[in-house]
Amino acid sequence: MPEVIYGETKEIEQIVLMTRKLLDETGRTIISRVPTEAIEVLRDVFNTYNVRVHGTARAVVIYKPDYVHRRTGGQVGVISAGTSDVPVAQEAALIAEEMGCEVTCIYDVGVAGLHRLLEPLRNLLTKEVDAIIVAAGMDGALPSVVAGLVPVPVIGLPTSIGYGMGGKGIAALLSMLQTCAPGLSVVNIDNGVGAGITAAMIANRVARARSQQSQ
Amino acid sequence: MPEVIYGETKEIEQIVLMTRKLLDETGRTIISRVPTEAIEVLRDVFNTYNVRVHGTARAVVIYKPDYVHRRTGGQVGVISAGTSDVPVAQEAALIAEEMGCEVTCIYDVGVAGLHRLLEPLRNLLTKEVDAIIVAAGMDGALPSVVAGLVPVPVIGLPTSIGYGMGGKGIAALLSMLQTCAPGLSVVNIDNGVGAGITAAMIANRVARARSQQSQ
Amino acid sequence: MPEVIYGETKEIEQIVLMTRKLLDETGRTIISRVPTEAIEVLRDVFNTYNVRVHGTARAVVIYKPDYVHRRTGGQVGVISAGTSDVPVAQEAALIAEEMGCEVTCIYDVGVAGLHRLLEPLRNLLTKEVDAIIVAAGMDGALPSVVAGLVPVPVIGLPTSIGYGMGGKGIAALLSMLQTCAPGLSVVNIDNGVGAGITAAMIANRVARARSQQSQ
Amino acid sequence: MPEVIYGETKEIEQIVLMTRKLLDETGRTIISRVPTEAIEVLRDVFNTYNVRVHGTARAVVIYKPDYVHRRTGGQVGVISAGTSDVPVAQEAALIAEEMGCEVTCIYDVGVAGLHRLLEPLRNLLTKEVDAIIVAAGMDGALPSVVAGLVPVPVIGLPTSIGYGMGGKGIAALLSMLQTCAPGLSVVNIDNGVGAGITAAMIANRVARARSQQSQ
Amino acid sequence: MPEVIYGETKEIEQIVLMTRKLLDETGRTIISRVPTEAIEVLRDVFNTYNVRVHGTARAVVIYKPDYVHRRTGGQVGVISAGTSDVPVAQEAALIAEEMGCEVTCIYDVGVAGLHRLLEPLRNLLTKEVDAIIVAAGMDGALPSVVAGLVPVPVIGLPTSIGYGMGGKGIAALLSMLQTCAPGLSVVNIDNGVGAGITAAMIANRVARARSQQSQ
Amino acid sequence: MPEVIYGETKEIEQIVLMTRKLLDETGRTIISRVPTEAIEVLRDVFNTYNVRVHGTARAVVIYKPDYVHRRTGGQVGVISAGTSDVPVAQEAALIAEEMGCEVTCIYDVGVAGLHRLLEPLRNLLTKEVDAIIVAAGMDGALPSVVAGLVPVPVIGLPTSIGYGMGGKGIAALLSMLQTCAPGLSVVNIDNGVGAGITAAMIANRVARARSQQSQ
Amino acid sequence: MPEVIYGETKEIEQIVLMTRKLLDETGRTIISRVPTEAIEVLRDVFNTYNVRVHGTARAVVIYKPDYVHRRTGGQVGVISAGTSDVPVAQEAALIAEEMGCEVTCIYDVGVAGLHRLLEPLRNLLTKEVDAIIVAAGMDGALPSVVAGLVPVPVIGLPTSIGYGMGGKGIAALLSMLQTCAPGLSVVNIDNGVGAGITAAMIANRVARARSQQSQ
Amino acid sequence: MPEVIYGETKEIEQIVLMTRKLLDETGRTIISRVPTEAIEVLRDVFNTYNVRVHGTARAVVIYKPDYVHRRTGGQVGVISAGTSDVPVAQEAALIAEEMGCEVTCIYDVGVAGLHRLLEPLRNLLTKEVDAIIVAAGMDGALPSVVAGLVPVPVIGLPTSIGYGMGGKGIAALLSMLQTCAPGLSVVNIDNGVGAGITAAMIANRVARARSQQSQ
Repeated sequence: MPEVIYGETKEIEQIVLMTRKLLDETGRTIISRVPTEAIEVLRDVFNTYNVRVHGTARAVVIYKPDYVHRRTGGQVGVISAGTSDVPVAQEAALIAEEMGCEVTCIYDVGVAGLHRLLEPLRNLLTKEVDAIIVAAGMDGALPSVVAGLVPVPVIGLPTSIGYGMGGKGIAALLSMLQTCAPGLSVVNIDNGVGAGITAAMIANRVARARSQQSQ
Repeated sequence: MPEVIYGETKEIEQIVLMTRKLLDETGRTIISRVPTEAIEVLRDVFNTYNVRVHGTARAVVIYKPDYVHRRTGGQVGVISAGTSDVPVAQEAALIAEEMGCEVTCIYDVGVAGLHRLLEPLRNLLTKEVDAIIVAAGMDGALPSVVAGLVPVPVIGLPTSIGYGMGGKGIAALLSMLQTCAPGLSVVNIDNGVGAGITAAMIANRVARARSQQSQ
Repeated sequence: MPEVIYGETKEIEQIVLMTRKLLDETGRTIISRVPTEAIEVLRDVFNTYNVRVHGTARAVVIYKPDYVHRRTGGQVGVISAGTSDVPVAQEAALIAEEMGCEVTCIYDVGVAGLHRLLEPLRNLLTKEVDAIIVAAGMDGALPSVVAGLVPVPVIGLPTSIGYGMGGKGIAALLSMLQTCAPGLSVVNIDNGVGAGITAAMIANRVARARSQQSQ
Repeated sequence: MPEVIYGETKEIEQIVLMTRKLLDETGRTIISRVPTEAIEVLRDVFNTYNVRVHGTARAVVIYKPDYVHRRTGGQVGVISAGTSDVPVAQEAALIAEEMGCEVTCIYDVGVAGLHRLLEPLRNLLTKEVDAIIVAAGMDGALPSVVAGLVPVPVIGLPTSIGYGMGGKGIAALLSMLQTCAPGLSVVNIDNGVGAGITAAMIANRVARARSQQSQ
Repeated sequence: MPEVIYGETKEIEQIVLMTRKLLDETGRTIISRVPTEAIEVLRDVFNTYNVRVHGTARAVVIYKPDYVHRRTGGQVGVISAGTSDVPVAQEAALIAEEMGCEVTCIYDVGVAGLHRLLEPLRNLLTKEVDAIIVAAGMDGALPSVVAGLVPVPVIGLPTSIGYGMGGKGIAALLSMLQTCAPGLSVVNIDNGVGAGITAAMIANRVARARSQQSQ
Repeated sequence: MPEVIYGETKEIEQIVLMTRKLLDETGRTIISRVPTEAIEVLRDVFNTYNVRVHGTARAVVIYKPDYVHRRTGGQVGVISAGTSDVPVAQEAALIAEEMGCEVTCIYDVGVAGLHRLLEPLRNLLTKEVDAIIVAAGMDGALPSVVAGLVPVPVIGLPTSIGYGMGGKGIAALLSMLQTCAPGLSVVNIDNGVGAGITAAMIANRVARARSQQSQ
Repeated sequence: MPEVIYGETKEIEQIVLMTRKLLDETGRTIISRVPTEAIEVLRDVFNTYNVRVHGTARAVVIYKPDYVHRRTGGQVGVISAGTSDVPVAQEAALIAEEMGCEVTCIYDVGVAGLHRLLEPLRNLLTKEVDAIIVAAGMDGALPSVVAGLVPVPVIGLPTSIGYGMGGKGIAALLSMLQTCAPGLSVVNIDNGVGAGITAAMIANRVARARSQQSQ
Repeated sequence: MPEVIYGETKEIEQIVLMTRKLLDETGRTIISRVPTEAIEVLRDVFNTYNVRVHGTARAVVIYKPDYVHRRTGGQVGVISAGTSDVPVAQEAALIAEEMGCEVTCIYDVGVAGLHRLLEPLRNLLTKEVDAIIVAAGMDGALPSVVAGLVPVPVIGLPTSIGYGMGGKGIAALLSMLQTCAPGLSVVNIDNGVGAGITAAMIANRVARARSQQSQ
């Protein structure tokens, strides 16, 4: 499991320090919610490393030159309800990928237009994903709808999109907790990292079971 | 618009008093949330009147013998997400009917099984309903889904079904307030009377417009 | 029903992209909560289009040169309690107008001075409005007062005006949800777009009924 | 100022003990929220005293046989929005009376029917009341309306009437705290005793000023 | 009663417009929470008027040259718990003064050092104040302590001082609402204007009673 | 996935009706939160069926005589923090078993005595469980501790144990949502059924992968 | 440190079982919040033991016949604000005594009558208490007042006394958390056991230091 | 006990004024949460004094040149869960040191890696600390874990680290209030000063007892 540095509340020096320590230990460092002003510093400091900036996901991943990406065969699906939910969804997707999974994303398929959901959902199932992350803010209805349609564990990922009463993701989280659909568990608002790790852990266990047996 | 006596927090004597006063003034009295022990009292006291007990809706309507039911031609749809939401949905339906509307009900079509929703929804639209009440507790997702599918004003009616965080209808109400779907307004948790009045007011205005013009 | 771009949480490029797409599809794009710095960009990018900036409502509407405004005959009333509620009220009015309604506005008639309310309310009724939007922050009492005085569906539109306990529109929203007045349903705090769509949907249904019959 | 025993959370023996102590010290004891089963006990134990039971206000006042009621000349008005608010309003009225004030009550004049309010309010002003208590649950709008109409200090007394979101008096209290009307201060939900004491303190100060000067 | 312009959420032009209107009508305008950048504008625009800036209270009062200050003889006390509560306390004091009262202020006498409170409180009583405003943030305990010590109506004025759980004045307000002391009513957090008006209304009624009788 | 009847809010007749329907369709019915008075009724009505009452879990499962239990090979662990958390933990365990999993339970290993946790946790890992449910009320710290110690997906199951601020499971749920440990997702308070289904879905997917490959 | 059985949420059999286990291990068992119906059962089952029932504290302590009470010399003070706070205060006192401390109690000295507090507080200090527990519901102001007056660690013990907004101890707890007084830490609402343990741990450390040195 | 100036909500001039006053009275001034821009001012104004800036703790302490640091012999432990909790933990440590205690700090030992905790905790106990402050944000689980492992009074210090539901320290505080571990009391979120004072008061009492006896 990757240790992820949560950049938002940290000083740049702290980030650099922790990044170097993790690089030494594991050959790779993932930093989420990177402050914009830290990106150039990281590029400079780690200019002999492989620095990948994931703009939408607000994340940076740095690899040692000899870092080898391992594929686990785990299959994860990521669905997001609205365009504003995409950054959090991308963060989750990135984490799952860094944990070796193949990730299939479906964006912008909110409950207000269910017809747009059914087709891509069917495609997802044919890929045999073993866990689906559904990111949604506002009414947070999408994860319940998805969990009602597919026999796959769904991780509800509420996003801080929404205003007024129940805003900032509160309504979305509460609605997911109150779901009537089976197989839906949740993580906290905007916790893309947590959703990604949980989904990848599930998918990787299945993938490992498959491959172990096939040997 | 009918004045409705909210029975739950009133003494039986108060209910009887207010019932008699309204009967004298309007020829009909609607009492919602009637305490069980009040029903027999009402039957006794008003035994020369027409007393109708609506068990599921927990309501009693009493009419003067010569009360004439007027039909307005208003068409209202009522949808409920789960079996536990039916009493509140029935209360709303009863009120709309007492306001002269024809009411079409669809029960038990939660988000966890969307396929059960589409067919009856299509039937509803062919009836040309002018307002749809959607009662839902728990995740409260159904009103958003319905409002996303039909071009009719939807009144979200959260019910106090649900437990834990966001329970007692809180998550349902918040999710409806945060809806992304157009044309959805809400009333308070378990406010079947309010939903019924609003829907009937809308439907009756349309019906009146139709009939006025046709004369 | 118009699809409205919520500008507040979007990047300018996203707004431009979505605007162009909607213009192509429907000939008109409405953007609410437009970030100030986006307005000039929109004027530049769409300089061959008809760009209307609604300052108070913080909205921009862009039309294809050949866009034809259709009038539905729907009549909507918009009332706001205080001067600080006007922007949200205007947003609602704008949406209803873009949906073809004629909108009559009454501003600055709070509960603390009820005498200022009665006269313009009477004028509103003579216009035969079919839905009234009442925007109020602070104590949120005005929608209840209006709904108690007129036999027209009222959409309560709480605004984020207010401070301390129950501030940011919370007290206003809760007070509207707890209303004793008949025919009042609500939308979320500052949701002028939602209130406008709901009111226009109601008014347009009535108007259509009128005109269909008259043919 | 009378010390009032809050009966609701006390054992009967505790109530009897405290009652006796206060009777000895002051010649009178007021017990609010008296548990039903305590009333007969109080009648029995203090059968040589003057025991007055105020059913609606859920209060008991016990006087020594030689207790002399003093009138201060203070004038207090008490208004309640709905029938369910009457018990709390009565509690407030009782306390003000026991503090020597003359109390004028207006019941059942909610915001949903403002026309019923204006006439009795005018009568109240001709009585020259120096403080007005306005009890209201649900939307809690009435105190704001009253404070906007009269130049007299208003004490908002929210009652625990209301259900769903903002229920149990929460919306009423918050709406009063957010009032736009001048001269409105509030006490906690159902705190009839507190409202009564505050109103009587104000009225008695004015009355004393009047009488002191007239000597 | 003075109409007060709440400056915080208004545009400078709006403030200027409303100021001029009120000046014309009443000869004086009070603006609370004046944005710093508005002060110079007000000085410029109304340079033929008497412009008084109350820095700590964040208020500006503008008078017509011929405006006559009337003294009512009303006596109001203002107490503040900590140095951070002083601005809100000053706002309340200013309003009471503008309503003609004489105001006596005691600052920085929190519950954590009760010995500092008793002496000045005694002085206050010898002044025969008819209403005391007690401003307190944090634990909000001071108003209860004061109301327990003096037989004068106390207006609890919670301030938005405080952090963490119950911060921003929430704990202070709740503690005041839960007071065991008699004669304490409250206004919303930071509502210095409301507290000032209520206190002055009370004090002025007493003063008027005194003077009317003495004639 | 089994459809589970939530007995708590249903009438006995409703339960019987739904039970019979599910028995006909699937040969088995699981009823959670069975009201005590319903148990004997169920035994009577379904006396030709196999009725198993799970006292601690407050659940009843009824099977057709010819119902065949299928074992999936899925391995699930269930841990509970305190004795009061056991009923909810048992409910989760029961559901996982009915979905074909083998369930290993560890009870009474709260954070206040971590030494009691480590040994049984090690045993759990040697069983190769693929999902662990951790039920905890009060501080809700145990799921975070467990997720920090094992590389297995953990489903946090807050229970409604706890009092005062953060009571009824609120603190437990929030603490789990705020976890720093990787691989922890949560369900709502007391949602043993949801936790059981999610864990079993994960374990069964892994088990199926194992067996499919081994063929 | 004594392990305390929280009786409120446990079955009688569970209590008996846990009681026996603890008696065997430590010679003494403390059961808090004992359900009334459990007391006789405990007396019966443990009739050869020394069973002490503490009625007000709602606790039972059972000792082996040969149990030796050890005095530590620790000195703890317990203060309660109102009569309704006494049970929780007594619970705290009992626990501290069972941990070997001498406990001095002061009851019924709320903030609304500070003069009653000063004298007994002075007596407490002459006893050289090393920790003071202050139990208070409602406004929760007393702990702050005490901590401001004495240089001894104070443990704030909010009780669930209070109604309306901030009721059930919420306002009391929040006010204590927001205290301006030094040396005040808090436990949860009604957690007399926790307050007692903390106070006794502090007092016992000081006592041990004293005695160790004197040897 | 040191009086501490809370710098965050004060003007620089106020800080300077209060600093000078305290320096005159006690020879030392501690300012917490010093605004960055105030530091240079303080250095300038008090350039003949000994000014120590504690960057991480965001505090400044200023001493008269002849100020004598007294050591009490009190031993305090400070533990922080994550790197983001260190500033608040340092603030607490600083206060305890300024009160004469020796403070031992353990940083970055969260629940997600319990193995890192046990060793340093053992070292802490060998130092014979008499009070331990445990700072934690997010899930707030560490104080419960520590209090379950050591027989020393623990002061839970929640920090405002955390996001989404239960964020800003809310979940941490609630989880600590709900602890099952004995001897844990809490202060408000980010209240390092309060935690430091409480811990030092306890430790100093023990130290004084030791030394008094040894004389």
